Amino acid sequence: MLDTEAVVPCCPPITAGELSPEDAERMSAMFKALSDPVRLRLFSKVASHAGGEACVCDISDVGVSQPTVSHHLKKLKDAGLLTSERRGTWVYYKVAPSVVAAMSAMLDLRV
Amino acid sequence: MLDTEAVVPCCPPITAGELSPEDAERMSAMFKALSDPVRLRLFSKVASHAGGEACVCDISDVGVSQPTVSHHLKKLKDAGLLTSERRGTWVYYKVAPSVVAAMSAMLDLRV
Repeated sequence: MLDTEAVVPCCPPITAGELSPEDAERMSAMFKALSDPVRLRLFSKVASHAGGEACVCDISDVGVSQPTVSHHLKKLKDAGLLTSERRGTWVYYKVAPSVVAAMSAMLDLRV
Repeated sequence: MLDTEAVVPCCPPITAGELSPEDAERMSAMFKALSDPVRLRLFSKVASHAGGEACVCDISDVGVSQPTVSHHLKKLKDAGLLTSERRGTWVYYKVAPSVVAAMSAMLDLRV
């Protein structure tokens, strides 16, 4: 499990210089979290949900079982891309904006 | 192997709406290409090399064998993130800017 605070901000734009082996380990783990189509769809459902937050009950229609959904959400959380909070019966997921922004900035070739 | 022309531009920012299953397949394949630390280092070496282009001879010092380097570079090419050209003895690699920009834009939460 990555520590979100330690991960952000990791990396300058990829054109600015080559990644250290340590930064490559950290960033590749984040890309890995988005490397599965179902996981990427779950992530996009959370990110595009009203208020930037979604209940697991809102996003589970991705054609896989509930335990598989939970497994994928845990992977996204472990990679630092989502945070979660239990409120009553449901767990709510939110995008971790600074982590996702770090990934976007790393791939930003305009700089 | 993905067709680069078909891939770009794929996707609006992830906050704009949820990805279709088809777009999720395509984008997750690109993230998968960057999900290995050695592959991500090779990619960053090409992207940060003078002129945005690197000979395989310039970037092979990542602590793995030459066949493994070639394997990783092929994966990056197949995903559409790098292009290559043989000139004389060497193969030169370049970042495919539109593909990488599409990935960055998809993760851009500012929009």
